[in-house]
Amino acid sequence: MRPYGRKPLEMRPLSLATGVNPYAEGSCLASFGQTQVLCTASLEDKVPGWLDGGGKGWVTAEYAMLPRSTHTRTGREHRNKGRAQEISRLIGRSLRMAADLPALAGHTIRLDCDVLVADGGTRCASICGGWVALALAMKKLGLAPSRQVAAISLGRIAGELRLDLCYAEDSTAELDLNLVLAPEGLVEVQGTGEDGLFSPEELALLVKAGMGAGREIFAAQLAALEAA
Amino acid sequence: MRPYGRKPLEMRPLSLATGVNPYAEGSCLASFGQTQVLCTASLEDKVPGWLDGGGKGWVTAEYAMLPRSTHTRTGREHRNKGRAQEISRLIGRSLRMAADLPALAGHTIRLDCDVLVADGGTRCASICGGWVALALAMKKLGLAPSRQVAAISLGRIAGELRLDLCYAEDSTAELDLNLVLAPEGLVEVQGTGEDGLFSPEELALLVKAGMGAGREIFAAQLAALEAA
Amino acid sequence: MRPYGRKPLEMRPLSLATGVNPYAEGSCLASFGQTQVLCTASLEDKVPGWLDGGGKGWVTAEYAMLPRSTHTRTGREHRNKGRAQEISRLIGRSLRMAADLPALAGHTIRLDCDVLVADGGTRCASICGGWVALALAMKKLGLAPSRQVAAISLGRIAGELRLDLCYAEDSTAELDLNLVLAPEGLVEVQGTGEDGLFSPEELALLVKAGMGAGREIFAAQLAALEAA
Amino acid sequence: MRPYGRKPLEMRPLSLATGVNPYAEGSCLASFGQTQVLCTASLEDKVPGWLDGGGKGWVTAEYAMLPRSTHTRTGREHRNKGRAQEISRLIGRSLRMAADLPALAGHTIRLDCDVLVADGGTRCASICGGWVALALAMKKLGLAPSRQVAAISLGRIAGELRLDLCYAEDSTAELDLNLVLAPEGLVEVQGTGEDGLFSPEELALLVKAGMGAGREIFAAQLAALEAA
Amino acid sequence: MRPYGRKPLEMRPLSLATGVNPYAEGSCLASFGQTQVLCTASLEDKVPGWLDGGGKGWVTAEYAMLPRSTHTRTGREHRNKGRAQEISRLIGRSLRMAADLPALAGHTIRLDCDVLVADGGTRCASICGGWVALALAMKKLGLAPSRQVAAISLGRIAGELRLDLCYAEDSTAELDLNLVLAPEGLVEVQGTGEDGLFSPEELALLVKAGMGAGREIFAAQLAALEAA
Amino acid sequence: MRPYGRKPLEMRPLSLATGVNPYAEGSCLASFGQTQVLCTASLEDKVPGWLDGGGKGWVTAEYAMLPRSTHTRTGREHRNKGRAQEISRLIGRSLRMAADLPALAGHTIRLDCDVLVADGGTRCASICGGWVALALAMKKLGLAPSRQVAAISLGRIAGELRLDLCYAEDSTAELDLNLVLAPEGLVEVQGTGEDGLFSPEELALLVKAGMGAGREIFAAQLAALEAA
Repeated sequence: MRPYGRKPLEMRPLSLATGVNPYAEGSCLASFGQTQVLCTASLEDKVPGWLDGGGKGWVTAEYAMLPRSTHTRTGREHRNKGRAQEISRLIGRSLRMAADLPALAGHTIRLDCDVLVADGGTRCASICGGWVALALAMKKLGLAPSRQVAAISLGRIAGELRLDLCYAEDSTAELDLNLVLAPEGLVEVQGTGEDGLFSPEELALLVKAGMGAGREIFAAQLAALEAA
Repeated sequence: MRPYGRKPLEMRPLSLATGVNPYAEGSCLASFGQTQVLCTASLEDKVPGWLDGGGKGWVTAEYAMLPRSTHTRTGREHRNKGRAQEISRLIGRSLRMAADLPALAGHTIRLDCDVLVADGGTRCASICGGWVALALAMKKLGLAPSRQVAAISLGRIAGELRLDLCYAEDSTAELDLNLVLAPEGLVEVQGTGEDGLFSPEELALLVKAGMGAGREIFAAQLAALEAA
Repeated sequence: MRPYGRKPLEMRPLSLATGVNPYAEGSCLASFGQTQVLCTASLEDKVPGWLDGGGKGWVTAEYAMLPRSTHTRTGREHRNKGRAQEISRLIGRSLRMAADLPALAGHTIRLDCDVLVADGGTRCASICGGWVALALAMKKLGLAPSRQVAAISLGRIAGELRLDLCYAEDSTAELDLNLVLAPEGLVEVQGTGEDGLFSPEELALLVKAGMGAGREIFAAQLAALEAA
Repeated sequence: MRPYGRKPLEMRPLSLATGVNPYAEGSCLASFGQTQVLCTASLEDKVPGWLDGGGKGWVTAEYAMLPRSTHTRTGREHRNKGRAQEISRLIGRSLRMAADLPALAGHTIRLDCDVLVADGGTRCASICGGWVALALAMKKLGLAPSRQVAAISLGRIAGELRLDLCYAEDSTAELDLNLVLAPEGLVEVQGTGEDGLFSPEELALLVKAGMGAGREIFAAQLAALEAA
Repeated sequence: MRPYGRKPLEMRPLSLATGVNPYAEGSCLASFGQTQVLCTASLEDKVPGWLDGGGKGWVTAEYAMLPRSTHTRTGREHRNKGRAQEISRLIGRSLRMAADLPALAGHTIRLDCDVLVADGGTRCASICGGWVALALAMKKLGLAPSRQVAAISLGRIAGELRLDLCYAEDSTAELDLNLVLAPEGLVEVQGTGEDGLFSPEELALLVKAGMGAGREIFAAQLAALEAA
Repeated sequence: MRPYGRKPLEMRPLSLATGVNPYAEGSCLASFGQTQVLCTASLEDKVPGWLDGGGKGWVTAEYAMLPRSTHTRTGREHRNKGRAQEISRLIGRSLRMAADLPALAGHTIRLDCDVLVADGGTRCASICGGWVALALAMKKLGLAPSRQVAAISLGRIAGELRLDLCYAEDSTAELDLNLVLAPEGLVEVQGTGEDGLFSPEELALLVKAGMGAGREIFAAQLAALEAA
């Protein structure tokens, strides 16, 4: 039996709470079950130097875990910087797909995704909540996102395909797949055989299941924006 | 008129919520008005190398601000490391006064105080909430704190002595005083003339006011422990 | 017309030269067209601390680019460390799938993949050449790889699906896909919509084309080992 | 009996020697007994970026200990950076109270306080000698300090209140108090119960004793300036 | 008998191959026996800030060893940075003697000397090959080097004076001498008694032998340029 | 006319004062004219890890300049680390020639050479004063140096050969030569043509002049030891 009494391809309870930071131009506390990520969007009236004069704005992200967001404490100095940078790059890349960069010209929106509790799926929660924070910050400029973006994790455990893995599942998965999705198609696919290979057919089944979960998340994102 | 309709020597609404982190041996979200600090206490079964064989345990603390905890975002790389280390050292020093280190022999308790929202008084909120988290972690070892410890900020603004400054007040204060207190006396006094001098008489008045506020905080800490 | 007069799903000339370093336990200079990566495998008689007593060996990798491996020089201090670490982690993860870690117990094999010339596909060349270097180093221990591992890049450019992109193609691709493959199935899939979305059908077509190229590379790897 | 045959509230022999560096705009070797701090003031014709156009100058300080200034050598890499930054910030803050910043507009004065021998009271010696170096550097601009600033350490040892602690005393003190003073009032109070609490009454007594010692130091500073 | 069947004052087989990097303005793979250094010259249309408006160009160098260029692997983080910087500074200083800096006004030429295989004499190979790469890059600007520069290592082993030491010799040398030479005289002399002293007479003999080898290298450099 | 009214091959007034640090096992303030270097020798009862069990002790050195030891202030962060490390390595290498390392077995002597005032010749003053500090520290172990070591700088300015250059001379020298000497021969020769070449004959003349100055320094070192 999965935690939360879920079926293999069912998500954990999802919550996207806005207005959680009084200063940020957009903020969202994204929870997938026990996992909690605090996402803030900061609007700056400048762009990185290499974009100067290019007629475009920029969206970037930084992902970090609080030291005790995990079962055992990870020292601030010993946190896996490679992993954190890799996820930061993924979040930034994914959310840039949601912004019309020429319309943002002259502005940078900087997403901070700080993990308060890590029970699996933190990069996906960061993208889902980050999109809400981004949309709220764009609203301050009179802009709307050009595209919705969400993400979901999937895996194979003891031969069974599952969706939205919690940490206990993730740590024993034979295959780990993260999907970044828009309503119109795929944004990013990252699949890793952790302890075994996978077939093109399994990949196709998981992509299909992920696209189904995406529809639920897209609806929750829109509801969060309306409630804000 | 002060924010929250307060009198000069009145505190902001105070909240010390426990159980906010599922993994930490102790946790407390301390709020002083809008200010929010997430405190976790992590229990380790070892001591720093220089304490080996000394028959004592250790308590230490790390203080950090999330990038958008402040009005404008502070880059993770540009956060004032000197200030953060100075506050970390203050928190650790203060909370070691609350622990019977020989009774903790063989253990380290590591407090992480991460500021979610900074509206003044973050180091005091860290000490107040950190004490609750520490007490909860000590309970896992069957130990109780040897002493209660709390902290409160005070200042002089346009000649008026005030207690528990919010950011807007703090940034215009002529004198900034942080008191760390136990029910039985003073633990630490840090007073700085930010833009002018102060007299021994003013120092004495502020210390007296701070000790009064301390009694309120000590009660709230005990209530939080009972509710946990 | 593609560089080297290639068809959309055709590889560049591939070369895997062994014996290029007199000290390393295994070495291979992997060339995909103009791209050149020098791979060395260093055998150490110890394992990382966290594996001590675990009855397993370890395989890890470091990827780096020489400053002038690119069209314009990149300062050693300004090289994209996030990207390099991300690729290092990918190479290490992929090549661990080629080693029977319990059989390696007590040993670490450390792959260094230094890019001499970067004309696209450097991470794939690192994995292909790294596997050859790894196999040679394992031979010194009387071991053989448990599985063959190779990698290939693919993409979509102006709507056309292509294989083994050179830099000029890669920089204009709308979709960028890296596949890590074993003869028996997929090891890793990393697909990114750089400037547009992609469909599950496109993903399936690219995976199929990549598996075809994999067969060519597997043959070249075996030939390189025999010639060594 | 205290070292140097002193009474509890008596200072060590104090010396403030000027002209000890041929290049600096102001220099002073401050000695409190065996403690020696070399203070230089460097005058720059620019201000930190964040002050540009603000019509103000700036005064800042850096404090560091030579590796063998202490009983046992401290490696350059392992010197307690948190403590050094904390003291640097204290010195800078204190000496800014001595300068009319608008009159300094366009200039920065940078104090370097390098500890040659550390036998207690190094931060106080830095402030006392730093003030002399600062005054000499201001003289090059035809300016005089707006206020005199000095500092003195105090403590409680085995229940006895003492002034100007040497290292052997400081390391066993139950209470450690540093006072920064002007002739007209208090600039900064930093009191820490190292191993026990203290009362408001003890604080008041120590502040009074410190203000008495301040008068001696103020006289020595003026004498040093006249002799320069 | 010396490796390669050499007499005490005879060089190893020398090769200076050009055109080894498709992007760099000049490139040369310098081999002294088994030692291999890849030298690239990158031409930039700017000068370091401190040269702005000075009417001069600049030449600088960076030297680094690949991790497995040595008998045992050296971690990228643990490579002897002091030694590498010292050699970088030597190469830059030496090659600036080959360039008419006023004629280079507005340009920087940046040499990267990356050691692929280190069997002794890597700094000398870097200077010899770096000069060829520099000359090729200057040619792109229509300039020629103002002076030829080469380098050679010498030493005393078991009392015998030898030239162009390989690693096995170098590691047992009692005296280690590196000479940087122009056809018209000495550019730099660095002699170190590794395990014993040396006399002015020995120094004079080694300088004379080094100048002889210099003539061979100067001829090889010119041949490489002609063949390019 | 040279500063101090010196002839071309005459030294500046030399002073080697001992007992300048109350904690160090050996200390010496070395002055060459205005140049001042504070040298301390710290004795440790352990050796670097790579020497464990090798039956040898170790001598090492660290050289650093105080920020305002120079005409204009150099920021602590921007001090030329390459140069400082290069000089640290030179001092350590040179002073190891003065110690019988097997007799030192189990001990490390760590020299700190901190430049208080830099008016040329700081590396030579460090070696000369460092030798005195080293000898005093060895005496605590009942050992004597196995060899005397000193150093002197020389140069060619406007065609004239000169000895013991001050900063004003050094910055215009065409040739810069540092000699490390023992009474019985040469330890190290570092000659650099700063802006022009030099001949073997000039090198020989300078070496001879330097050996003459060495005799004066050796006598001063012995006198300092006797007076200690």
